[in-house]
Amino acid sequence: MKLATLKDGSRDGRLAVVSRDLAWAVYPGEPRTMQAALERWDDVEATLTALYDQLNAGNAADAFAFDPHNAMAPLPRAYQWLDGSAYTNHGQWMERAFNLTPIDTTLPLMYQGGSDDLLGPHDDVPFRDDAHGIDCEAEVVVVVDDVPFGAKAADAAAHIRLVMLANDWSLRGLQPREMKTGFGFIHAKPSTSFAPVAVTLDELGEHWHDDRLHLPLAVDINDRRIGQPNAGEMSVGFGRLLEHAAFTRRLRAGTLIGSGTVSDAADGAGSAALAEVRAIEQVTQGQIRTPFLTFGDRVRMDMQRDGASIFGVIDQQVVSALG
Amino acid sequence: MKLATLKDGSRDGRLAVVSRDLAWAVYPGEPRTMQAALERWDDVEATLTALYDQLNAGNAADAFAFDPHNAMAPLPRAYQWLDGSAYTNHGQWMERAFNLTPIDTTLPLMYQGGSDDLLGPHDDVPFRDDAHGIDCEAEVVVVVDDVPFGAKAADAAAHIRLVMLANDWSLRGLQPREMKTGFGFIHAKPSTSFAPVAVTLDELGEHWHDDRLHLPLAVDINDRRIGQPNAGEMSVGFGRLLEHAAFTRRLRAGTLIGSGTVSDAADGAGSAALAEVRAIEQVTQGQIRTPFLTFGDRVRMDMQRDGASIFGVIDQQVVSALG
Repeated sequence: MKLATLKDGSRDGRLAVVSRDLAWAVYPGEPRTMQAALERWDDVEATLTALYDQLNAGNAADAFAFDPHNAMAPLPRAYQWLDGSAYTNHGQWMERAFNLTPIDTTLPLMYQGGSDDLLGPHDDVPFRDDAHGIDCEAEVVVVVDDVPFGAKAADAAAHIRLVMLANDWSLRGLQPREMKTGFGFIHAKPSTSFAPVAVTLDELGEHWHDDRLHLPLAVDINDRRIGQPNAGEMSVGFGRLLEHAAFTRRLRAGTLIGSGTVSDAADGAGSAALAEVRAIEQVTQGQIRTPFLTFGDRVRMDMQRDGASIFGVIDQQVVSALG
Repeated sequence: MKLATLKDGSRDGRLAVVSRDLAWAVYPGEPRTMQAALERWDDVEATLTALYDQLNAGNAADAFAFDPHNAMAPLPRAYQWLDGSAYTNHGQWMERAFNLTPIDTTLPLMYQGGSDDLLGPHDDVPFRDDAHGIDCEAEVVVVVDDVPFGAKAADAAAHIRLVMLANDWSLRGLQPREMKTGFGFIHAKPSTSFAPVAVTLDELGEHWHDDRLHLPLAVDINDRRIGQPNAGEMSVGFGRLLEHAAFTRRLRAGTLIGSGTVSDAADGAGSAALAEVRAIEQVTQGQIRTPFLTFGDRVRMDMQRDGASIFGVIDQQVVSALG
């Protein structure tokens, strides 16, 4: 099943079921919002799935053309956004390029992100200053319903209800100072952007296994491909990330858990963030050639299965917030 | 005006207006929840204030006795919880006691906290293991409506709608490892607890000035007073904390901003967290005598004005989450 949240002037938008080919949409009577669906998933899943099947068969009454420009983030705001950093390859390049001390932890890396203002796939992305090192990070994000306190990986993974694609915008010039405080990111991680539809695990077929999504994630900047790393290269899967998050507390329905910047050591995989492109340039060419983003630049992300977009694309422009 | 959220079986509870003396409550017809009130504050403030005045005068129809044991956190879940660390005195004791390197920053310290599951004033507080260094932190928290991107301190402070009292539970044994990663806190900061009522600034009278609440905050553990530091001793006020939070993004209605553990260098002020009690023991007596909390311990917090509780008390028991 594929679900989106369409703009209706409210902060939470309106839940819509979207056809597998992303061409059509239909509003369920209830629930009205994505958050409401996640809070009573077991009660609403069958009804929503039946509507999805009708839509795919061309039999849904009141179906309308799906316009991704009218999509908000599937959850336009969330009560929790926990982002991991689960690709060892990414960390290793950063450490080699910039002589960083490896982060001393045998546990998954994860930070608490801001979730009051998540952006839709074609919304302009406002930044204060393009001297701050504006960068993209293509990620896979899962959404859970209620996860019990202390859940182990396998039990926690059973609470994954939806999968999304995200661009975790980062300000590289502000990141080192915030990391040095030990308190994590406030300035360096502004609003995150999301692809238009969230999908259930069955939509991913054989590409979802070991709590990972094993497909390449294509990232283009101003129509230049910077990478298509395989998202399945996580050193720990989403179940383990959820176990980490739930170690000292329960997680409530609608919590988002991110993979961190997808990264893949395979030849030709490229990168899903400019920081990694630059790190590889530093190590292999002795100097950085690729700049960070500036106002007017566009970033596009897409993940396909059998030649068709799974989540719809993220395609956005970097703009000045303060004019 | 004083507002609370009462348990009604739902995740967000039901908004109630509470009398100044905390004896009576009444449900407004609309809005139904605290979050809804914050989203359209300018539209609902006059109606809620009129109801508050009737309640205080003994003239509110359908008034009922206010039971703080039936209160949830004023916002039982929030889209954002940003906690500062604005008391220099606290940081200095910690550095002296444990030979910590002072955190290198000229900007306010702040972390993004988990806000999907905030606790009411008399809810039991579940922890995984009382070997984790369970500690309390008494704090003042403000709640804003929509704050624009890049707002300066004075403009941002004008968006403060309510003030709350919180216990930012902390696990001291897990904190150093998470700080070393630079990614902030996931394990070390489980659910935060809140006093039963949130109050508007006019309730604080002359005690609110310079974007700070200038009153002592009493903290008792198992009926032993550990401190009553004055919350006005912040090195930066809430306006400056909000400016910091809004530097690279807007803040959406219902965002919580905390002061950090209240700390006061005055003689006899004591401390609002056991970590500080222990740091002072280490420095002044050469050894730590006070243990962290264990299952069954109770923590009580209260702030009074003219001998009357402003927010109602937090009074909770530390319990085992996993049985």
